[in-house]
Amino acid sequence: MGTIFLHEIAGTAMLLLLGGGVVANAILAKTKGNGGGWLMINIGWGLAVFAGVYVAYATGAHLNPAVTLGLLANGSDMFGGNPDLGLAAIPATAGNVIAYLVAQMIGAMIGALLVWVVYKNHFDAETDPGTILGVFSTGPEIRSLGWNFITEVIGTFVLVFVIIMFGSTPSGLGPLAVALLVVAVGASLGGPTGYAINSARDLGPRIMHAILPIPNKGGSDWGYAWVPVLGPIVGGVLAGLVALAF
Amino acid sequence: MGTIFLHEIAGTAMLLLLGGGVVANAILAKTKGNGGGWLMINIGWGLAVFAGVYVAYATGAHLNPAVTLGLLANGSDMFGGNPDLGLAAIPATAGNVIAYLVAQMIGAMIGALLVWVVYKNHFDAETDPGTILGVFSTGPEIRSLGWNFITEVIGTFVLVFVIIMFGSTPSGLGPLAVALLVVAVGASLGGPTGYAINSARDLGPRIMHAILPIPNKGGSDWGYAWVPVLGPIVGGVLAGLVALAF
Amino acid sequence: MGTIFLHEIAGTAMLLLLGGGVVANAILAKTKGNGGGWLMINIGWGLAVFAGVYVAYATGAHLNPAVTLGLLANGSDMFGGNPDLGLAAIPATAGNVIAYLVAQMIGAMIGALLVWVVYKNHFDAETDPGTILGVFSTGPEIRSLGWNFITEVIGTFVLVFVIIMFGSTPSGLGPLAVALLVVAVGASLGGPTGYAINSARDLGPRIMHAILPIPNKGGSDWGYAWVPVLGPIVGGVLAGLVALAF
Amino acid sequence: MGTIFLHEIAGTAMLLLLGGGVVANAILAKTKGNGGGWLMINIGWGLAVFAGVYVAYATGAHLNPAVTLGLLANGSDMFGGNPDLGLAAIPATAGNVIAYLVAQMIGAMIGALLVWVVYKNHFDAETDPGTILGVFSTGPEIRSLGWNFITEVIGTFVLVFVIIMFGSTPSGLGPLAVALLVVAVGASLGGPTGYAINSARDLGPRIMHAILPIPNKGGSDWGYAWVPVLGPIVGGVLAGLVALAF
Repeated sequence: MGTIFLHEIAGTAMLLLLGGGVVANAILAKTKGNGGGWLMINIGWGLAVFAGVYVAYATGAHLNPAVTLGLLANGSDMFGGNPDLGLAAIPATAGNVIAYLVAQMIGAMIGALLVWVVYKNHFDAETDPGTILGVFSTGPEIRSLGWNFITEVIGTFVLVFVIIMFGSTPSGLGPLAVALLVVAVGASLGGPTGYAINSARDLGPRIMHAILPIPNKGGSDWGYAWVPVLGPIVGGVLAGLVALAF
Repeated sequence: MGTIFLHEIAGTAMLLLLGGGVVANAILAKTKGNGGGWLMINIGWGLAVFAGVYVAYATGAHLNPAVTLGLLANGSDMFGGNPDLGLAAIPATAGNVIAYLVAQMIGAMIGALLVWVVYKNHFDAETDPGTILGVFSTGPEIRSLGWNFITEVIGTFVLVFVIIMFGSTPSGLGPLAVALLVVAVGASLGGPTGYAINSARDLGPRIMHAILPIPNKGGSDWGYAWVPVLGPIVGGVLAGLVALAF
Repeated sequence: MGTIFLHEIAGTAMLLLLGGGVVANAILAKTKGNGGGWLMINIGWGLAVFAGVYVAYATGAHLNPAVTLGLLANGSDMFGGNPDLGLAAIPATAGNVIAYLVAQMIGAMIGALLVWVVYKNHFDAETDPGTILGVFSTGPEIRSLGWNFITEVIGTFVLVFVIIMFGSTPSGLGPLAVALLVVAVGASLGGPTGYAINSARDLGPRIMHAILPIPNKGGSDWGYAWVPVLGPIVGGVLAGLVALAF
Repeated sequence: MGTIFLHEIAGTAMLLLLGGGVVANAILAKTKGNGGGWLMINIGWGLAVFAGVYVAYATGAHLNPAVTLGLLANGSDMFGGNPDLGLAAIPATAGNVIAYLVAQMIGAMIGALLVWVVYKNHFDAETDPGTILGVFSTGPEIRSLGWNFITEVIGTFVLVFVIIMFGSTPSGLGPLAVALLVVAVGASLGGPTGYAINSARDLGPRIMHAILPIPNKGGSDWGYAWVPVLGPIVGGVLAGLVALAF
């Protein structure tokens, strides 16, 4: 269980540091990447997953409750580990599910905190509350909670379903395959809601947004917070179930 | 035949969901990726193929009538399967050709439907009929059906010819190689017609465009519809024949 | 020798079709990729090499006189072939050098011709002669033939030197490694002269530009033509010699 | 020790030639890539590392004092070499540490010199001193030396920590993995300071900036120079120590 906490916390923190970081770079005031655009954000998040997967390789690099619960729905009996490399296998027990989820939340909060440290001067120089919240958490372009929820369900379905399909295909890409898949989901399905597709990725940083002393920050938009938490869980579980047919 | 339908439908639906999705994100009103540009669209379609290939790995991941017919013209006796991985070999029979083509059309229609669901609010907010059609089907920048047809023939020739050449080269890239090839065709040869290079990719969504209740949608431009259906078939078959010399 | 002609012609034609194509898409009037920017052009050329290398794998995929002459300067006794795959080895004889160079020129001309066919309507709609020439051949942003020559020497040196260094490194990337290297040279060293880094890539299309009946085309800038022919040859030979020390 | 000097000098020179080159292309007057944007710069630097790693493969391709010192802190007893490929192992001795660091500084200076040669006309045409310095060395968008230092520490920590984690993961990506990691750090954490994340990369070119006869160049901003020298060293050593827990 120490392995789960160490690797899932560190991997999810890496994910949020690089993922939140690219958003900060693209939208906060006076950064070098200001106005870098959606593709830069997609590539940044994809490579954030890339780095996070290397860090959490020993635990199967879930980094995302939708992956953990999707694997569970798919009937996996192992969450991670690689005996060929001397990494102990991690069984899919109830206790381990909770350990993964808690570690992912803690890691996401730490990552968001580090983004704030890296971009401290730029947060202080930013005057728009919506921009500040946007570095931490997702929000819809057109608020319509039902449709926003469906968008998150479908985006996460694609993520978890294709990850499960990786397992039946020979390919030497390793973490790069997941990274490219995340770029795809972001570029293609992120337009309406900003693709949380990961409950911890959205909720952890939203809590940090509420806590951190940032000038000009506004509310943390708790009315929307359930969408990027429940949508990814539903999408991930659905993916795990549908993949059983393949 | 159940395998063909399951995998080619799911794979082509994935292709269209992510491929149509990136166009929706780039051009529909009020999306986060609005104005994301041609390279984002190219990368999005390339990665749509990437994800679709993983989903349809068991059937050789044609996802495209031009590939099925090109392999046939090239004299392939097998369409897919991988006995080393326990996947049954799929012979290139007349019945299977029809199964692939029908599955690809069904999958393309399902994928287009899902794009509409994901971007529902943004379709409703869009007022330009040409933009709405552009999410579903391709259209030329300068209408000149003969030259547009030739452009589609050449683009599809490149796609299918290089895919066939992959077979004689050792490389560990797997689905990434096809994805990069699709990015190449889009960036280089997609300028005049928007690179259908896949009859199902264009016709299936065009039918969905005609059916779906989208405010402000205009006609489905049926006068152009034969170009992105016949062009890719001719290009794919030509590629299969020319590759025989290599 | 038939193998050399078949594969080097087809591979170099593929290179120019996709490479010239991405420039056409980025700069010609009324294309979908108009204004796509330098990075799109870099990625397009990189993937043009990617596709060309698969097509010409049987001959070592030189596609470039600077590579052929660089390998010669490096003392290679084989130009291509792969007995493990049943591909006959191609010795580095004087006759074969000439065959490679002639095939590369023919292939480059065919590729440029195909770009014109694909973008026929857009060439006809283009009114700026410099833009039209820019699809075919390179030209400097600041004309200063000596410095332009040095820039082409250094760019080609990097290309050929790193390609030779690939040989001493284990990596499963295959053609992708060369593609990424070409993206690098373009993004980093292409700013002053547009990175011909390949004599055939520049001279073949320049001849086609002089021949083809394009409205509004101007002169083919023959006064500059020696720079992107001699610069790459000097750079490639230098790379072959320097690599001997490694 | 000759191997260390040859490969680390050549590899770091390649890194700076391509890395400085992409910045020159993006920001100097009248280049073809002018205004190419942050993502092009990130990709250019990533691929600069890609090429540099191939060149310096025989010495483990540190190219960066933060990597050399991070490996030392991590307790590595070998810096490079690959007996399976006939490359002599290079032990982590005090003398070799010095050889790596000196070679990296010399290589960085040579690379910066070559950028100046490639872009000679464009340096001469540039009138803004800050732009000229920006091609050579990094500088902060918001000057606040303490926070700038922390940003460099965290960016370099991510780089060196994930590189060390590569070692415990099977993957066939080779130099591409490091290249993608550098793209990630640049896109995500480069916004405030321009991500030196390498003491030699910043100090070597800054010295060349002070020496070279460039019209309109201003001061070399020596008051900031310690930040991108010490920050990366602290970050790299921290990464080596933290990685011991994994």
